[in-house]
Amino acid sequence: MPPQRRIDVVVDSVKRLLRLGATSNLLNLLQKQHPADLAQVFTELQEKDRYATFTVLVERNSRLAMETVAELGPEVGAALLRNRSAEDIARFLQEIPSDDAAALIEHLPEELRGAVLELIRRKQTGGVEDLLEYAEQTAGRIMNPNVFALAEDMTAGEAITALQTSRDVEMVFYLYVVDSRRHLVGVISLRRLLLVPPETPLKRIMTTDLISARVDTDQEEVARQVASYNLLAIPVVDEENKLVGIITVDDVIDVIKDEATEDLYRLAGLASDERVFTPPVESLRKRLPWLVINLGTAFLAASVVAVFQGVISKWVALAVFMPIVAGMGGNAATQTLTVIVRGIALGELTWSNSRKALLKEAVVGLGNGLTMGMVAAVVAWLMMGDPRIGVLLAVAMVINLFVAATAGTLIPLGLRALKVDPALASAVFITTFTDVCGFFSFLGLAALFLRYFPQAG
Amino acid sequence: MPPQRRIDVVVDSVKRLLRLGATSNLLNLLQKQHPADLAQVFTELQEKDRYATFTVLVERNSRLAMETVAELGPEVGAALLRNRSAEDIARFLQEIPSDDAAALIEHLPEELRGAVLELIRRKQTGGVEDLLEYAEQTAGRIMNPNVFALAEDMTAGEAITALQTSRDVEMVFYLYVVDSRRHLVGVISLRRLLLVPPETPLKRIMTTDLISARVDTDQEEVARQVASYNLLAIPVVDEENKLVGIITVDDVIDVIKDEATEDLYRLAGLASDERVFTPPVESLRKRLPWLVINLGTAFLAASVVAVFQGVISKWVALAVFMPIVAGMGGNAATQTLTVIVRGIALGELTWSNSRKALLKEAVVGLGNGLTMGMVAAVVAWLMMGDPRIGVLLAVAMVINLFVAATAGTLIPLGLRALKVDPALASAVFITTFTDVCGFFSFLGLAALFLRYFPQAG
Repeated sequence: MPPQRRIDVVVDSVKRLLRLGATSNLLNLLQKQHPADLAQVFTELQEKDRYATFTVLVERNSRLAMETVAELGPEVGAALLRNRSAEDIARFLQEIPSDDAAALIEHLPEELRGAVLELIRRKQTGGVEDLLEYAEQTAGRIMNPNVFALAEDMTAGEAITALQTSRDVEMVFYLYVVDSRRHLVGVISLRRLLLVPPETPLKRIMTTDLISARVDTDQEEVARQVASYNLLAIPVVDEENKLVGIITVDDVIDVIKDEATEDLYRLAGLASDERVFTPPVESLRKRLPWLVINLGTAFLAASVVAVFQGVISKWVALAVFMPIVAGMGGNAATQTLTVIVRGIALGELTWSNSRKALLKEAVVGLGNGLTMGMVAAVVAWLMMGDPRIGVLLAVAMVINLFVAATAGTLIPLGLRALKVDPALASAVFITTFTDVCGFFSFLGLAALFLRYFPQAG
Repeated sequence: MPPQRRIDVVVDSVKRLLRLGATSNLLNLLQKQHPADLAQVFTELQEKDRYATFTVLVERNSRLAMETVAELGPEVGAALLRNRSAEDIARFLQEIPSDDAAALIEHLPEELRGAVLELIRRKQTGGVEDLLEYAEQTAGRIMNPNVFALAEDMTAGEAITALQTSRDVEMVFYLYVVDSRRHLVGVISLRRLLLVPPETPLKRIMTTDLISARVDTDQEEVARQVASYNLLAIPVVDEENKLVGIITVDDVIDVIKDEATEDLYRLAGLASDERVFTPPVESLRKRLPWLVINLGTAFLAASVVAVFQGVISKWVALAVFMPIVAGMGGNAATQTLTVIVRGIALGELTWSNSRKALLKEAVVGLGNGLTMGMVAAVVAWLMMGDPRIGVLLAVAMVINLFVAATAGTLIPLGLRALKVDPALASAVFITTFTDVCGFFSFLGLAALFLRYFPQAG
C-alpha cells in the first residue's frame, strides 16, 4: 500500500476507535506505528481528536508519544503538552533527545516554561538547560550534548570494548578522539577500527584533519558543511576546542528544509513559522504587516499615476495598458530575484562574481524587454487600431524590464551587504520599483508624446 | 579563517598561478583541497580560468578532478568535459560513482554521449548504462548499484570478515542481508554485529521489518522516507524485491535541495535547471515562455479595463486606484499560495484536511480584505478629498482579497488533483484571477455607482 493510503487508513481507524471509546484497541494500533508515521496521523486529525489520542498514548507509552511530539515539531508539540502539569512535562521530556526537549520548552507558555526548567535543573538530567543558553539557530542549540568520545591514549581493542559497553550513543560511525582535557584531537571511522590489530594505538590510526563546528556557528553554515563534505555527523566544540556535542545528518536535513521554507516564505512575505493549519487569527496577525507595507508601496505607485491624471483623461487607452508595463516588470523582476536569492543561499553567488551576475541579468533584461515590447506593441495596435500606443508600450517595456533586471540583482546583493537576509525584504522593494518605474515610463512617455503631437488621444 | 575567506584566498592564488603559468605550484595547491571546496573555487573562476584549471588537474590527478566535477553538478561538469575525446571521458568517468557518471553523460552533447556509452559498454565497467535505463528522478537513477550485502546463512564472525576484505563499499553502517537469490530479507547495524558472539547466525540478529525503496519510486518520496525515518541510507530493490542498489543520505540531501529550488523556481516561472551563471541567451530562451504567458494574461486583464474606458473617462481617479485593488489581490494570493504549495510539498496538507485549509484561508482572506479595505479607503479619501472613491475601493478590496484567498487555495489543490505540480502553474492562474477580478470589481462597482449617481466623477 502506498504510504499515504496506509496513513489515511490509520487516521480513519483512530477516529473510529476514539468514537467507540475503545482505548486499548486504539493503543494497540498506535504502538504498531513508527513515530514519523504517527506524527503524520496526528497532523491529519482534528485538534480535539489529536489531543485525545495523545492523552491515551502518553499515559501508557510516554516514549512513543514523546518521539511523536518531537517529530511534530516544537509548536504543535508544545500545544499538546500545554494542559499538563510541569511535573508531567519534565518527566515526559526525558524520553527525547535534549535538543528536541529544548525546542519544546521554548514553545511552552511563559509560566510553564520556568517551572519545567526549574524541575529539570533539580533532577540534574542535564543538557536541556545548557542548550537553551546558546542562541537560536546556532550549532549549540541543535546539537546533541551526549557525544561518545574515545581517549587518545587508548588502543583499538580498548576502543571497541568502550563502544560495546556504552549506551545511548546517537551516532557511532564516526568516533571522535579527545585528549585528557576533552579537546577534540581526531576522528576514526568504526570500519577502520575493525581493520587494525587490537593493540594499535588510536593516535596512529586517527585522522587529525577533521571538520568541526563551533557552538556559535550558524545552523545554516553547519548544514552547508555537512552537505558539501558529505558527512554523517559533525562534532561541535566550544571556544577552547573542547568537544561538547554532535550534530547528525538527520538534524541537518531538518535545517535544510526549514531554511528552504524560510526563503520561499520570505519572498512571499510570510512569517517562517506559519503553517497550513496555523489558526486564522494568528495567520491574519502575521500576514497583515506585510500587506500594510505593500499597500503603502501601492499608494506610492498610485501617486505616480495621479500625477498623470490629466494625460489619462486626454487618452483613456493609456489606463488600459499601464498595468501591463508595471505587471510585466514585476514578473521579470521576480524571475531575476529568485535566481539571485537562491544563488546566494546555495553559495553559488559570491562577492567576487556578482558583477558578472549583474551583467548577465542586464543582458537578459534588455532581451526580455525588446521581445516582450515588440509582441505587446503588435497586440495593442491590433486591439486599439492605433500603432502609436503600441510604440509607447514597447519603449516603456524595454525600460521597465531592464530596470527590473538590474534592480532584481542589485537589491538582494545590497541587502546582503547590509547583512539583511536578501529573501526578506527584496520582493517588496522590487515591486515598488517596477510599479513606479512602469507607470512613470509609460505615462511619462505618453505625456511627452502628447506635448509634441497634441492631436493624439 | 571562515570558510568563504579561505576559498577566496585559494581563488586568488589559482588566478595568480595560472597567469604565471606555474603549473606544478597550481597542482600542489589544488591537491590540498577537498573536492567540495574545489567545486566552490571552480564556481568562482571565470569560465576560461575554470577550464584551464580543470585541464591541469585532470591530467595529473583525474580522481580529484572528477570528484570536483561530480560536486559541481552535471551541467557545469559536462561543460568542462565537452572538448575531451570520448576515450578520455570514459576513462575519467571510472573515477566517480556510477550515479554521478550517469548524470554527467546525460548532459554531454548528443554525439559524444553515444560514443562514451559505447566505450563504457565495451569496457563492461557496468552500472552506468543500467542506471540510465531508469526514468529520471526515480530511485533507480540516483542509487549506487555497488551495494554491499551479506548472505543470510552467514554468522556474525563471517560477516565481519567479509566486511574487512571488501573494498569500495560506500556505506557500511547498515548491512543488508539477502537470500541465495539476492532477495532483500533483513538489515543489521554494524554496531549490533560487534556486540554478539562471532558464531551467532545473522538470521537470529537481523531486523526483518525494514524500509526499502523500489527502483521506480519517485526520488522525492525516497527523500521523504529517509528524512522522516531518520535513515542514513535506504536499500533499493527491483520489482521482485531483489537488492539492486543503495541511496545514501548525502544523495538525499541533494534531492531535498533540488526539490526546494524547483518549488521556489516554479512559483517564479523559472526552469529548474537555471542557475546564476547560465549563459544569457539560454536564460532568455528559458524565461521568455513564462513571460509570454504572463503577457497574454496581462492583456486579458487589460481587456477588462478596456470595457470600462467610458467609466474611466468620466472619472479619471479610478485609473489611479485600480492597480491597487489588483496588486493587493496578487500579494494576498501569493501568501496563500505559498503556504498551500509548501504544505503540499512537506506532506502536511492532504486530501482529508483540505476543506479545513480552504475554510481557514477564506476567513483570513475576509479579514485581510476588511482591514486593508478600510485603511485604503481612508488613504484614498485623504488623497482625493472624496469619500466615495474610498468606499468603492474598500468594497472592491474585500471582494478581491476574499477571491484571492479561495483561488490561492483551490487552484493548487485542483492542479494536484490533475497530477500537475501545483508549484508549476499556480502563480500565473492566480495573478490572472486577481487582476481580472480586481479590475472588474472596482470598475464594475464604479460603473453601477455612476449609473445611479451620474453627477459623480
